[in-house]
Amino acid sequence: MTLGSSSGKVAVLGAGSWGTSFSIVLADAGNDVTVWARREEVAESINESRENVDYLPGVELPAGIGATHDVEKALHGADVVVLATPSQTLRANLATWAPYVEDDAVLVSLMKGVELGTLNRMSEVIAQETGAGPERIAVISGPNLAKEIARREPAASVVACADESVAKRLQQRCHSPAFRPYTSVDVVGCELGGAYKNVIGLAVGMAVGLGFGDNTTASLITRGLAETARLATRLGANPLTLMGLAGLGDLVATCSSPLSRNRTFGEKLGQGRTVEEIYASTRQVAEGAKSCSSLRALAASHGVDAPIAEHVDDVVAGRLTTQEMMNSFIARDTKAETD
Amino acid sequence: MTLGSSSGKVAVLGAGSWGTSFSIVLADAGNDVTVWARREEVAESINESRENVDYLPGVELPAGIGATHDVEKALHGADVVVLATPSQTLRANLATWAPYVEDDAVLVSLMKGVELGTLNRMSEVIAQETGAGPERIAVISGPNLAKEIARREPAASVVACADESVAKRLQQRCHSPAFRPYTSVDVVGCELGGAYKNVIGLAVGMAVGLGFGDNTTASLITRGLAETARLATRLGANPLTLMGLAGLGDLVATCSSPLSRNRTFGEKLGQGRTVEEIYASTRQVAEGAKSCSSLRALAASHGVDAPIAEHVDDVVAGRLTTQEMMNSFIARDTKAETD
Repeated sequence: MTLGSSSGKVAVLGAGSWGTSFSIVLADAGNDVTVWARREEVAESINESRENVDYLPGVELPAGIGATHDVEKALHGADVVVLATPSQTLRANLATWAPYVEDDAVLVSLMKGVELGTLNRMSEVIAQETGAGPERIAVISGPNLAKEIARREPAASVVACADESVAKRLQQRCHSPAFRPYTSVDVVGCELGGAYKNVIGLAVGMAVGLGFGDNTTASLITRGLAETARLATRLGANPLTLMGLAGLGDLVATCSSPLSRNRTFGEKLGQGRTVEEIYASTRQVAEGAKSCSSLRALAASHGVDAPIAEHVDDVVAGRLTTQEMMNSFIARDTKAETD
Repeated sequence: MTLGSSSGKVAVLGAGSWGTSFSIVLADAGNDVTVWARREEVAESINESRENVDYLPGVELPAGIGATHDVEKALHGADVVVLATPSQTLRANLATWAPYVEDDAVLVSLMKGVELGTLNRMSEVIAQETGAGPERIAVISGPNLAKEIARREPAASVVACADESVAKRLQQRCHSPAFRPYTSVDVVGCELGGAYKNVIGLAVGMAVGLGFGDNTTASLITRGLAETARLATRLGANPLTLMGLAGLGDLVATCSSPLSRNRTFGEKLGQGRTVEEIYASTRQVAEGAKSCSSLRALAASHGVDAPIAEHVDDVVAGRLTTQEMMNSFIARDTKAETD
């Protein structure tokens, strides 16, 4: 089974809000989409009421989308496999799923995290657990707030694969009237941009929750992108990727939007709520609350200065208050900007 | 008279919202500040009620600020001259003011525009009209929404001068508890970042006015910064400046904030109002509505592709509707992102 460029069967593994929204893109682009849901009742609700009530309420799913709780069924005959689970559960899931993935199917990560402990990026976890080579592993990342994508508002994104011809075929497979994918060969840059932006989004949310204004949040975004670029380029990314849709674009969308889970999570922290209280009140995951720790460790292991990841990690772990974090940022010495 | 690093007399020429807000920074940093106001009643109101009722209502001005309508009096003994007029009036103003500027005083531009017709940056206009060398011309630019600065919310900015020692002395002169200046030698990058961000802010405002969401505005910001960097680096700027506070930072603050005049102006255009209607309803200037034309011409004269400046200019001139502008952006071909 080799990757077709026009249309075909796509398996989307994970029926959260982003997995479901991206299924709409894929169906609009002409694919036959099967969504795998971890909970059987979510699959049933999608098939019966054409709606993902828990994660994307109010959006009617097009006819090209079917759902199942049976991963073997979802993967059978799919030449594209889209992975959309929480980052920290990917490895365990793939261990179960790998035997059912078609030979030569391309594995596409929608996930934006770095694994705790191993400090592996999602593409590395995919390679390790499935044995797929770099020409079969891709990443899609950009300023793509799930709810706006589901409403078919115009959006652009980046499809990255080390093999440019695969990136181009995937681009065609997910190019819908409202969704414009650009190709790239920089998998590392896209993954780091996607993971880091959640951590910066948390920091911006904290500032907003504390009452700081747009000058402060713009400064945090600027220093945050510089921090992301420092680490990503050290790991081999192209700095231009970080200045593009999967870096700056995704970062700005996350930090601007009240729809962003990470920004909202940070805002609640800034308002004085604890991590435990926030987890107790929402079912959705804020990836940045995990990735701050793994990105901090990844930066440390490469000798890269990462003050925002460090401070956010300290806040999430309860070692620092949000006010102490902001005071620490404000107190840093003035110097030449590009030192 | 050479530039002191601790404190001294500063003339601020222009009593609009940014000139007045920056006067607060300078006074908080220990300077003796004299603001020149074009209209005598504004100067009187500042001196008598400690408030700039027209441009910064509700903010009490500190004791270190005095105002005058007499430019000779404002400039006498000032070793720092801060220029804060609308960009398009700078040349005519300087022709009158130049004889009163102290020898060796440093001229600091707060202005963010490019002169129509000549396509000169503000630092070039200053050099031509005063004869000052590059070691006497500086620019201050960053994510500095005037009203937030006036409320003393924490903010960072860039002080750029070709002579780094002058930038460092200016940095000390305007470092207040809430205002953190970083030094740079990249005058061109700071000026282009500041001017272009107003044009991008207009485009983002138009998208918001038309009802587009955060994915779209984040994409516009991303493509806008790339467009800015293309032109600025062609003119000799350091690309890192555009990724910093005076580029990305200022752009994000402008595009995020309802306090931004340019974004607000664009939003009204997106809602279907005409340029004439908007001008009739507000006294404040949206610099981007002028600079879109001069930046477009500057880009064309250097062979640089500038789709956002072109489209915004067409909308402001009435040759294109905002909806046509957005349709044109969305219809552009997909390709590799960094082509």
